Amino acid sequence: MFKVGIVGGTGYTGVELLRILSQHPEVTIQSITSRKEAGMAVSVLFPSLRGRTSLAFSDPIDAGLEKCDLVFFATPNGIAMQQARALLDAGVRVIDLAADFRIKDVAVWEKWYGMQHACPELVAEAVYGLPEMNRDRIKNARLIANPGCYPTAVQLGFLPLIEAGIVDLDHLIADAKSGVSGAGRNAELHTLFAEASDNFKAYGVPGHRHLPEISQGLSHMAGKSVGLTFVPHLTPMIRGIHATLYAPLTKDTDLQTLYEKRYADEPFVDVLPVGSHPDTRSVRGSNLCRMAVHRPQGGSTAVILSVTDNLVKGAAGQAVQNMNLMFGLPENLAINHAPLFP
Amino acid sequence: MFKVGIVGGTGYTGVELLRILSQHPEVTIQSITSRKEAGMAVSVLFPSLRGRTSLAFSDPIDAGLEKCDLVFFATPNGIAMQQARALLDAGVRVIDLAADFRIKDVAVWEKWYGMQHACPELVAEAVYGLPEMNRDRIKNARLIANPGCYPTAVQLGFLPLIEAGIVDLDHLIADAKSGVSGAGRNAELHTLFAEASDNFKAYGVPGHRHLPEISQGLSHMAGKSVGLTFVPHLTPMIRGIHATLYAPLTKDTDLQTLYEKRYADEPFVDVLPVGSHPDTRSVRGSNLCRMAVHRPQGGSTAVILSVTDNLVKGAAGQAVQNMNLMFGLPENLAINHAPLFP
Amino acid sequence: MFKVGIVGGTGYTGVELLRILSQHPEVTIQSITSRKEAGMAVSVLFPSLRGRTSLAFSDPIDAGLEKCDLVFFATPNGIAMQQARALLDAGVRVIDLAADFRIKDVAVWEKWYGMQHACPELVAEAVYGLPEMNRDRIKNARLIANPGCYPTAVQLGFLPLIEAGIVDLDHLIADAKSGVSGAGRNAELHTLFAEASDNFKAYGVPGHRHLPEISQGLSHMAGKSVGLTFVPHLTPMIRGIHATLYAPLTKDTDLQTLYEKRYADEPFVDVLPVGSHPDTRSVRGSNLCRMAVHRPQGGSTAVILSVTDNLVKGAAGQAVQNMNLMFGLPENLAINHAPLFP
Amino acid sequence: MFKVGIVGGTGYTGVELLRILSQHPEVTIQSITSRKEAGMAVSVLFPSLRGRTSLAFSDPIDAGLEKCDLVFFATPNGIAMQQARALLDAGVRVIDLAADFRIKDVAVWEKWYGMQHACPELVAEAVYGLPEMNRDRIKNARLIANPGCYPTAVQLGFLPLIEAGIVDLDHLIADAKSGVSGAGRNAELHTLFAEASDNFKAYGVPGHRHLPEISQGLSHMAGKSVGLTFVPHLTPMIRGIHATLYAPLTKDTDLQTLYEKRYADEPFVDVLPVGSHPDTRSVRGSNLCRMAVHRPQGGSTAVILSVTDNLVKGAAGQAVQNMNLMFGLPENLAINHAPLFP
Repeated sequence: MFKVGIVGGTGYTGVELLRILSQHPEVTIQSITSRKEAGMAVSVLFPSLRGRTSLAFSDPIDAGLEKCDLVFFATPNGIAMQQARALLDAGVRVIDLAADFRIKDVAVWEKWYGMQHACPELVAEAVYGLPEMNRDRIKNARLIANPGCYPTAVQLGFLPLIEAGIVDLDHLIADAKSGVSGAGRNAELHTLFAEASDNFKAYGVPGHRHLPEISQGLSHMAGKSVGLTFVPHLTPMIRGIHATLYAPLTKDTDLQTLYEKRYADEPFVDVLPVGSHPDTRSVRGSNLCRMAVHRPQGGSTAVILSVTDNLVKGAAGQAVQNMNLMFGLPENLAINHAPLFP
Repeated sequence: MFKVGIVGGTGYTGVELLRILSQHPEVTIQSITSRKEAGMAVSVLFPSLRGRTSLAFSDPIDAGLEKCDLVFFATPNGIAMQQARALLDAGVRVIDLAADFRIKDVAVWEKWYGMQHACPELVAEAVYGLPEMNRDRIKNARLIANPGCYPTAVQLGFLPLIEAGIVDLDHLIADAKSGVSGAGRNAELHTLFAEASDNFKAYGVPGHRHLPEISQGLSHMAGKSVGLTFVPHLTPMIRGIHATLYAPLTKDTDLQTLYEKRYADEPFVDVLPVGSHPDTRSVRGSNLCRMAVHRPQGGSTAVILSVTDNLVKGAAGQAVQNMNLMFGLPENLAINHAPLFP
Repeated sequence: MFKVGIVGGTGYTGVELLRILSQHPEVTIQSITSRKEAGMAVSVLFPSLRGRTSLAFSDPIDAGLEKCDLVFFATPNGIAMQQARALLDAGVRVIDLAADFRIKDVAVWEKWYGMQHACPELVAEAVYGLPEMNRDRIKNARLIANPGCYPTAVQLGFLPLIEAGIVDLDHLIADAKSGVSGAGRNAELHTLFAEASDNFKAYGVPGHRHLPEISQGLSHMAGKSVGLTFVPHLTPMIRGIHATLYAPLTKDTDLQTLYEKRYADEPFVDVLPVGSHPDTRSVRGSNLCRMAVHRPQGGSTAVILSVTDNLVKGAAGQAVQNMNLMFGLPENLAINHAPLFP
Repeated sequence: MFKVGIVGGTGYTGVELLRILSQHPEVTIQSITSRKEAGMAVSVLFPSLRGRTSLAFSDPIDAGLEKCDLVFFATPNGIAMQQARALLDAGVRVIDLAADFRIKDVAVWEKWYGMQHACPELVAEAVYGLPEMNRDRIKNARLIANPGCYPTAVQLGFLPLIEAGIVDLDHLIADAKSGVSGAGRNAELHTLFAEASDNFKAYGVPGHRHLPEISQGLSHMAGKSVGLTFVPHLTPMIRGIHATLYAPLTKDTDLQTLYEKRYADEPFVDVLPVGSHPDTRSVRGSNLCRMAVHRPQGGSTAVILSVTDNLVKGAAGQAVQNMNLMFGLPENLAINHAPLFP
């Protein structure tokens, strides 16, 4: 049994990690920390986990994280970068579900996240935890930057097009829609039920922190810089991301075959048949990314529809997928549950 | 008092017409027809209207529609075209809230709607009822083709850009999201609560009937044919449309000023301040279209956010706006209620 | 034109008052106060009111409330009791939408609300603003205690039964369900969309503040103390209260006739036909209370279903109804809009 | 491996059975039938199951059900009673998730279900599949009547009170609220998103088919007939039942201890700590029934809050629990997943 720790377990990402890991046959959760809730039983804060775990939240000081094989950070941005060095030095591997190690250009990171980076030297070492791009490097990594929720759905959707070199890289558009859990478990006005229900809106059009992360990923695939317009929206559902991607085609190709081939061996990417429209609920609670490929009226614009569960493939599930790879376990262990429908 | 009739009053468009017209000070509803519900009191089918109307649904035969000043068709596609000629000949003006008279090219209409047109000669006469484009022609029209819900939000959003001639007309994108009432009051599986709630999906990507209507409108504005990719989505809310529009800019212009000037005198178009993101709920129950204009990162792509209530400005409210214009009444009479928030 | 002021206009009750009063033909809103938002235009905080009001929030000090004819308190509990005396002394009438003057027994109030009452002498003078019980006293009142949302739906539902003296007063049960807006516009975890959506729960079963208010009302009707079990629930909708009331019958009576007669002249109470089940949406956005009367299997338990919009008849609408009575205006002025359906 | 068949797999109960059974380590699904969809791959109708099953719906004639060890009926009422005899005669055990075998008094069944019973003699043999009451009889049963969704939550909630003989059996009240999936996957108007969302209502107050089923169960526990008022409500969520139960106490007892003792060994009943209020989402997707016990103000009325997922413990999960018992497998096999939160 591997021993893992969770730093910051009171948010939706933390509780989703707990849901998954408490059912994982090869892992023991050594401790889960929360300064604020230290001493409280996890199942008091999250009654859905009654009978699943006898853990209580512990103060980070007492958590014995250095004895773990691997530590997940399910914390706000800016925390993992302060603690990762010590853990790595103690031989503990680290997966950060926040953004601290996602952007390779530290100056860009500091601009978008509004703080000074505490350990720029680790940014270079960190491996971006998108298995469909970086599987081999993940296996041997000490430090994983787990991708953001939008970036996962958007990058997986564009990947085959860009690798194939058949789109105008200067005019990519990602129109993305997220469920409200993506905003986190924080008491804020704009995500109240009476504000977010029966409503739809865009936000962050002038600039969203996931833009540089996505741009970096797409540019990396393309081998050159890309021009992307990214517009996120808030939609009245709990879980789910739907990315609608638009790319001007520069070459005539059988897109369906391209996508099916690229993802043929991927356990968590499902290319739907021609003419499909994936529902977000078709992946609810699962680690899947389902997608469909369209070329409306046979024109020159490819339209890709890509859906994930933001808390699973977009966060905790992908983190466990990375952990499985790092531990040499079957990649789908404990993240292979069927989606919950309806 | 003007006398009006409603053909087909059992859908959401019909009941919304009833809500508005029952509070209109210059109009009497002469009759509302439904073959299926003939004899049933309107307030039995729609308890929200108890105490508002003593009408019962009548059989079209007995409805005395030819005595009305104006008749609304809130029917499925293909009904109005069979009855409009007789009403017009009897001196009755007609507003069709369905699609029978929206597409000028009858062959295109027949292809998308899958039936033969019953009165092509009236298509030429019909005025497209978007007051922000055709106000003067509406005033004198006998026959109005009331715009579709998506087309209203999308056309109003693109209008200033296209009129100004500052965008690449070959690469317009409209990513639109609709509340579920847009699918109508029909017993269908895919719009059940357990199917449509907590879910998000695109539909009709290969081709949606509102595409030729929007293309016609944009082409008319531009004076030449445009290339549009239109992707509609279903979002779990009752009312509301959010159109996110993308247009490549070909010229540097102050977009905010352009939009504010274009709509300065429009009673039902509200251009929000720079940097805004309109909520659909900010127009819930009202005849308003609110919009915001963005140019992310100062790049070459304009992003327009345009919201309406699909049942009001996207259907019944706009129909009453057209009726007010046709009757020489104040344009905002009975459709000037404040939105319902939250 | 009457001049009114609103103290504390940033909550849902406040914005609903604004929606109603901005469309009231006999009232001018003199000022709306908010210490926190002083200086901000109302339409910036509430874009739904763009074009409806040019007011900005003002600091209470500068609001000139003493020049108003009437002041509404849409504040948290404990504010109105500190300011009511000065306003009354200045000749200003007061309607408190919070709980400060609802409970006649000051000791009971202090126990349930956890604070000392600032002006017990005014409690005696205050008139409980339920027009269906106290219409005449409301007309001449200086100070109105506007009823709570649950108490309105529950008391109107029980009223005919209790007045008729045909139920066992020791075993009344009110099982009530509220939309989430009833919890107010406060950033709290348990009313986040991701917490309250797709979920249902009871709360406050050991004791809810509306219990003593309802008990007082029912006891007043009965002329003796009643035994009530009151269980409130949170249901995933924005607006609406549904009270399901259970009363053991002690006498055989035609309940339908009893209810229809009692409410025959009430403009805002609608008794549905035998066998009906009122939807909360049938009163959405309106000042109506609709109800249905059942006696399942002809047994000895009466079941009353009573629905209101918690922000209208349960708060702002009833406050305006009281104001209309106090000003000698038609009782339904500006609160007679049709419900929004769907 | 046991071989099972599913008759009628296109509803929510059927797809939930598929979700659970496709992850069951000791069971092979031999066939799933649907006359209407015969030939269609299950994963085409239910994309959430892509990659989970390669089954196609088969015509009942070709399904080879007689070769199964056990057949589930996830059909409308009135189907299982026509086919059960032949299967039983072929040595196949049967679990009916519909109502055909739930009511022991055939005349009562025929009255409430409006049809003649096809095999009254099997009604007597059928075991009511509520393991917490009938575990031993279930193990050896050939034919199981799987309980309804409301009856499961209500009976488990009342059980300890009634067994202990401490309540007035003539005045029991069950105020129950269900998510919309309880109405089934049928194209009907009243369960459309635009009808059921943002709305709350009671239904079936004069009489609901689950009333005689619950009454029978409670009477069986009590050893005498009980008087129950049962009011079901429709609440805008997909899954979940919340039963709020009221019982007049006739004896002073420590209710918390009573409930904890009664359910101490039950794997799927969770009695929450004193003062709790269970959320329906705390059991979403799981086979659990969580409950809390209250006695408001220390009075004479017990209030029990009982929640389940209507599709799991209220249908498919309980059916698999029964199957596990019948096959001598661990009772929680394949139905032990953690609830999905948020």
